[in-house]
Amino acid sequence: MVLNGSPVVDVHTHIYPPAYIDLLSARNTVPYIHKPLIADPKQHAKPDPRLVILPSDDSESIPKDHRGRPVDASYSDIKQKLAFMDRHSIDASVVSLANPWLDWLPSDSAASTAREINDSVESLCKEHQGRLFHFATLPLSAPLPDIVGEVKRLSKLQYCKGLIMGSTGLGKGLDDDTLAPIWSAIEEAGLLVFIHPHYGLPSEVYGPRHEESGHVLPLALGFPLETTIAFVRTYVAGVFERHPALKLLLAHSGGTVPFLAGRVHSCMLHERVFRDSNGAMQPRKSIWDVLSTNVWLDSVVYADVGVTAATSVVGPERVLFGTDHPFFPPIGKEEDDETWASVDLNVKAVHDAYSKDEIGAKGVLGQNAVKLLGLDLVRR
Amino acid sequence: MVLNGSPVVDVHTHIYPPAYIDLLSARNTVPYIHKPLIADPKQHAKPDPRLVILPSDDSESIPKDHRGRPVDASYSDIKQKLAFMDRHSIDASVVSLANPWLDWLPSDSAASTAREINDSVESLCKEHQGRLFHFATLPLSAPLPDIVGEVKRLSKLQYCKGLIMGSTGLGKGLDDDTLAPIWSAIEEAGLLVFIHPHYGLPSEVYGPRHEESGHVLPLALGFPLETTIAFVRTYVAGVFERHPALKLLLAHSGGTVPFLAGRVHSCMLHERVFRDSNGAMQPRKSIWDVLSTNVWLDSVVYADVGVTAATSVVGPERVLFGTDHPFFPPIGKEEDDETWASVDLNVKAVHDAYSKDEIGAKGVLGQNAVKLLGLDLVRR
Repeated sequence: MVLNGSPVVDVHTHIYPPAYIDLLSARNTVPYIHKPLIADPKQHAKPDPRLVILPSDDSESIPKDHRGRPVDASYSDIKQKLAFMDRHSIDASVVSLANPWLDWLPSDSAASTAREINDSVESLCKEHQGRLFHFATLPLSAPLPDIVGEVKRLSKLQYCKGLIMGSTGLGKGLDDDTLAPIWSAIEEAGLLVFIHPHYGLPSEVYGPRHEESGHVLPLALGFPLETTIAFVRTYVAGVFERHPALKLLLAHSGGTVPFLAGRVHSCMLHERVFRDSNGAMQPRKSIWDVLSTNVWLDSVVYADVGVTAATSVVGPERVLFGTDHPFFPPIGKEEDDETWASVDLNVKAVHDAYSKDEIGAKGVLGQNAVKLLGLDLVRR
Repeated sequence: MVLNGSPVVDVHTHIYPPAYIDLLSARNTVPYIHKPLIADPKQHAKPDPRLVILPSDDSESIPKDHRGRPVDASYSDIKQKLAFMDRHSIDASVVSLANPWLDWLPSDSAASTAREINDSVESLCKEHQGRLFHFATLPLSAPLPDIVGEVKRLSKLQYCKGLIMGSTGLGKGLDDDTLAPIWSAIEEAGLLVFIHPHYGLPSEVYGPRHEESGHVLPLALGFPLETTIAFVRTYVAGVFERHPALKLLLAHSGGTVPFLAGRVHSCMLHERVFRDSNGAMQPRKSIWDVLSTNVWLDSVVYADVGVTAATSVVGPERVLFGTDHPFFPPIGKEEDDETWASVDLNVKAVHDAYSKDEIGAKGVLGQNAVKLLGLDLVRR
């Protein structure tokens, strides 16, 4: 992509550092990594290990060797991340652990494991100064003071530009009051929180024949609908009244939040629960206010209609380019110079949505992230 | 609203004919209508009967008298519908039964009950010629030949302009092969099918404290997410390959389909299940093709961002104005000349989305429906 020297920054790009791969490979319940015993005849070499993160992927109806998806070196080898960035003219990446993060760690070791993993990612960024930054991961299963302690520690790391968090927080949702001291610490540290789905929806919502469509329904719908529900719960519960400085980056352009914000607003207006005894609205902030003050959206929505909607609700300076690498690689044999269809769709979406606004396109593709996160880039 | 003489048509507006109210009042499991024993102190007169249609509204944790929502005369009295139309300058309404339609009728009487109810609505339309048309209701619990028979019979009724159907069809989804003869009969009759949500999502997806937000989460999210899942299932299962002449009108601007279509498209491209042995895509149609050939969307999305997204994916001539009357009435005492906030939001959404396209606005607000459904209007 040619942007006349304007930088391209990817804020939605995942890694599993080698230490994390080792942790998952030692497990045999979701989440886990397993090595298929039988070689896949479609693969030339020996089969890649497979990562099982969705409960629906661990169904007894799927042969064990076929459960989950292949985890090739693109998940853990930083050279592959950098090669991917070069191939797609991405100047800098703000990497984050992919789901399921560290939520499943035993309580007593969670804090020390999180420090090790966050520090290993910080070191990677230092080795590739100006090209890599990161959103760190909290040890959400650790005792509360340890979680708050890690927020404070992370805020001092040079390349840590925020946090990534799943949609359930400590397990009971982002609207759980138990999160209050964590939100307060995050507000004080000024860290952006990248809210990312993981659990999807219960598989029965996709109907009796959903497995015939492979992963399409859980991936295309489950993830964005999970984010939508998590964010709207957070809003209706009044979290943004209690934590007005909270800054959330919602994955996949907010799931479906930009499209449904109008309906949420109308339902709030028509719900007696949100009126006080004088008939005035509670909470005071409308969802539109929250979207334009507390929310940023990535542009991982694969079509201009989504990027346009995202822009409408948060403003052009709050939409940030992302790729979701290493997920959605090309199907079939990959040529070295070939760009990924999933990335091409997202780049085209931004250019189409901003076809009459070159400054806006440059903002979304990189400059918004540089300004928001204070990135000190090294130009290629 | 001033449209220089261009008609306003409401395609999303519900009724419960008196015969239907009687059927529901005779039941005591969901769906049912009950009369509260204790007067609500906030109401001046005796309390209205209450309609319980969501399983989550029938929870033991809610006092029986407070379950469901009030069903005042606006649900069944056609004079109130016409007064609502006058108040909002709506020239014609294409009325449809509200959920849960007739899906719950005993199999042996379903066909005859459906004929009675459809004929009673047809008569209402005849009495108010040019102002009322309808989407009829199929007896989906009846034997298959009776359902197909009712499709054929309905296609000959003068004021019947299509059908309304819930998101589960015969109970197993719109992608259920058992529906094939019904879809074929509908294609042959050329009837539009208004796909409307009813079941929402299982209440656990909203988290442990969802009842504190009243009906906001099930209504604002559950309904559109249900429609989204139902439509995408229908698409991925290849129903539009087998029934290329099917015409669906999706409620609430498609739930979230316009926003998620790009992600669905990308997930299809990246799913091996949808490749044949030569690597070519199956099914052949993309979701974009289906949206622009088989789908119409109402404009009941309460913000211009949604109307703009809907327009982007189906084209301006396929977006049709709606109100969702009698749902979302004003909270508190209503003045006779007051317009409803829920309607005002939807009207403003169209005007804002089409602020530079007066012809487009006139199309969405009425002319698209007149052309598509062949409405012979009587102008006020």
